[in-house]
Amino acid sequence: MSKEITSRSQDYSQWYNDLVLKGSLADYSAVRGCMVIKPYGYALWENMRDQLDRMFKETGHVNAYFPLFVPRSFLEMEEGHAEGFAKECAVVTHYRLKSNPDKKGTLMVDPESKLDEELIVRPTSEAIIWNTYKDWIKSYRDLPLLINQWANVVRWEMRTRLFLRTTEFLWQEGHTAHATADEAIAETRQMLDVYARFVEEYMALPVIRGVKTESERFAGAVDTYCIEALMQDGKALQAGTSHFLGQNFAKAFDVKFLSKENQLEFVWATSWGVSTRLVGALVMAHSDDQGLILPPKIAPVQVVIVPIFKGDEQKSKIDEVADILIKHLKSAGIRVKYDDNDNNRPGWKFAEYEMKGVPVRVTLGARDLENNMVEIARRDTKDKQSISLENLQHHIITLLDDIQQNMYNKAKAYQQEQITDADNLDEFIKLLDEKGGFIAAHWDGTIETEAMIKDKTKATIRCIPLNNTMEDGKCILTGKPSNQRVLFARAY
Amino acid sequence: MSKEITSRSQDYSQWYNDLVLKGSLADYSAVRGCMVIKPYGYALWENMRDQLDRMFKETGHVNAYFPLFVPRSFLEMEEGHAEGFAKECAVVTHYRLKSNPDKKGTLMVDPESKLDEELIVRPTSEAIIWNTYKDWIKSYRDLPLLINQWANVVRWEMRTRLFLRTTEFLWQEGHTAHATADEAIAETRQMLDVYARFVEEYMALPVIRGVKTESERFAGAVDTYCIEALMQDGKALQAGTSHFLGQNFAKAFDVKFLSKENQLEFVWATSWGVSTRLVGALVMAHSDDQGLILPPKIAPVQVVIVPIFKGDEQKSKIDEVADILIKHLKSAGIRVKYDDNDNNRPGWKFAEYEMKGVPVRVTLGARDLENNMVEIARRDTKDKQSISLENLQHHIITLLDDIQQNMYNKAKAYQQEQITDADNLDEFIKLLDEKGGFIAAHWDGTIETEAMIKDKTKATIRCIPLNNTMEDGKCILTGKPSNQRVLFARAY
Repeated sequence: MSKEITSRSQDYSQWYNDLVLKGSLADYSAVRGCMVIKPYGYALWENMRDQLDRMFKETGHVNAYFPLFVPRSFLEMEEGHAEGFAKECAVVTHYRLKSNPDKKGTLMVDPESKLDEELIVRPTSEAIIWNTYKDWIKSYRDLPLLINQWANVVRWEMRTRLFLRTTEFLWQEGHTAHATADEAIAETRQMLDVYARFVEEYMALPVIRGVKTESERFAGAVDTYCIEALMQDGKALQAGTSHFLGQNFAKAFDVKFLSKENQLEFVWATSWGVSTRLVGALVMAHSDDQGLILPPKIAPVQVVIVPIFKGDEQKSKIDEVADILIKHLKSAGIRVKYDDNDNNRPGWKFAEYEMKGVPVRVTLGARDLENNMVEIARRDTKDKQSISLENLQHHIITLLDDIQQNMYNKAKAYQQEQITDADNLDEFIKLLDEKGGFIAAHWDGTIETEAMIKDKTKATIRCIPLNNTMEDGKCILTGKPSNQRVLFARAY
Repeated sequence: MSKEITSRSQDYSQWYNDLVLKGSLADYSAVRGCMVIKPYGYALWENMRDQLDRMFKETGHVNAYFPLFVPRSFLEMEEGHAEGFAKECAVVTHYRLKSNPDKKGTLMVDPESKLDEELIVRPTSEAIIWNTYKDWIKSYRDLPLLINQWANVVRWEMRTRLFLRTTEFLWQEGHTAHATADEAIAETRQMLDVYARFVEEYMALPVIRGVKTESERFAGAVDTYCIEALMQDGKALQAGTSHFLGQNFAKAFDVKFLSKENQLEFVWATSWGVSTRLVGALVMAHSDDQGLILPPKIAPVQVVIVPIFKGDEQKSKIDEVADILIKHLKSAGIRVKYDDNDNNRPGWKFAEYEMKGVPVRVTLGARDLENNMVEIARRDTKDKQSISLENLQHHIITLLDDIQQNMYNKAKAYQQEQITDADNLDEFIKLLDEKGGFIAAHWDGTIETEAMIKDKTKATIRCIPLNNTMEDGKCILTGKPSNQRVLFARAY
């Protein structure tokens, strides 16, 4: 095996990088902080994107596309928004290069092409979109406006990691406009539910739904709802956010509508997004020291068939069996690959597909086939079974469901086991250092206390869970009264 | 009707803008030269994209994603490429804004965030991709590499038009790597055929396949193949290009592979792309003075059903009929919309869907239904028919096919009629001014003559058609010998 992976226990962070690179999901690029999403990784993202897109459309949303660039002055319009994004953005200042007279064969910025106003490569599109909505919304009849955009965005992050935090990333951003606050809040919550359902049902990853504290809110939001997932090293990862923006952007861009009562009112807004970061979450949550483990529902290849044979005669017999199996699986909508590439030996292939996390491997061996038997290996548990050719296809379909469910159950058990109460700061720190996971603790509700706990422990409040149990208690730092526990964790 | 359209005869160019804006395809944005693609226009683009994507995958290609930014020095690597794109590109020079101390509430570029090397927002991705391929290609076993990318690109065009020429546009760019020139040329031609097939079969728009002259070649290509379509005003529009890049990019980025014969050789390349420009072509080629006419195969809504009724009793009877019809059409894969919105009257709806180019309109009138009849109107010919409810769904499906075919036939007849031979310059100019279309004329094969004809007439050589007839003749400008006619036209 040339493709060795660092083990999780040895170096979790390196293990993750190894998986992404050797599992052929992505590669580093020559551009600082940007990655190349390789075909296998992109196919995974396509499956995730297509399913999310279906769910958005089922909930009444349509797609559109807005410009890549945000004029500087637009970013200034909403104060909190400007503060949140101005410090890390790619700024276009010129629109032309010219030959460098001092160095033949090279180019330089043409100083005469300086823009009157700089353009920011969108870090998010509230500003450009609300400037557009101003023209589209006149009356209550134009509402609600339920629009989503699939796009690339750029945030000039100082420390980057493949998928988890890259300068450029792919995402979707929903931007909706409503006549009432209630409607907008309902939309915010609906999309949080869509995200939770997607991550749990398709990515086999349980999440906690909650609301962010003020200091962790999106820049420009009144409330930020989130789903939080747990990685195998006990750190949390924010997997999606849905923001109730109140009338902040409507006021910043002067977007008013004539209500049914003939009153001119500011429009209510939401925005919500998930990104290629989800691919990173998927890798970190499920994989093992042999490679990726992908949930069947979104795996680019769900079943790989590997033939084992000597000579053309055996091969052609295996081909016959494989052809029928592939036809049956494809007609059942299964993504199947037959790898009869001569250049690689079966052992190499086994390791390769284990690395790539293909849920089910079917080995068609010449000798087994004489007895009408094939070997099936599942990636999640690594169990192998000899199965009769009869009903093979039915068996595989059931097995895929089983793997999907088993992956979720395993992650769910881990998550449950990793939510622990702490009633004082010592306990809190000990749990963080020795166990990790989410720590449910009382907090006095102030930004100052939250910041101090973060300074001391590197743990942040991931969220105040929705439908939280109310109970009286005392803040672990200040001892001040609190009426509910919030979830802390160290996080990606 | 509030939505009046300028007629083609009055002002073709304004007619086009009216259609795009009032047909809800796109809107101007606040960013110079960039447009907003509205939900209806984006749904059209999605249908085109999805079909192209299927065709790319059927021909063995996979999708991937490369960075938005190209370092300045990468653009310099291939000389022709640099010359072609350096003069119109968005240049990122800084990565941070800060509060402007001189003007409260505004932002300014932080001079301390200047990049060591400027980043260009990709005008096309050959440079960044071939720099990556260098790491991916070692041996003939790694070839061919058949990758496509769906992305946004930016070219700082001086004069822009919605869809046809925008600063930012959406496109796909295929970038393939091969072991031999023959293989790369075959790929270039194959993708040209895919484009031609897509535009003809799905967009109902006949094209001419050809090869560009040297002066019209893509910057960095050895040969540029193209498909050329004809608009209703007699001007040509380049609808797609496929480039044989030779070893130019492999040499610029030092991409070599070990051949089967154990020789280190430079890799052969192709690239090919179509963009949202195709939406503009579609609009210009088929529409009329009442609005868009969209081919059924890619129309966002293929059938719209409009009820005409008085009172709830009539309405509920119509709903019953509509529900069954919708169910049948949907199960046949037809995209159908039932517009029973109370806010608008039937006449308004008729005009609206005519404007939006919906291929088939079904009117369910209470009185007609008593006789089991409905009215069907087709958008392309504007014919109306009373049809029995029986077999309605079958009739509609056949009608959609009919419309698709009729639109192609009409465009094909027009194209054929608009290809005219000219044997001298006077005839050439007269034809250009009075008839337009493609003019087939002899040319001496030199860049100078091509440039002089362009200066005199504003006509360019659109292409040298593939499978051209060879015939002896004399250049219309210089009288020098020529062995084939080439196609000239004024073009978008």
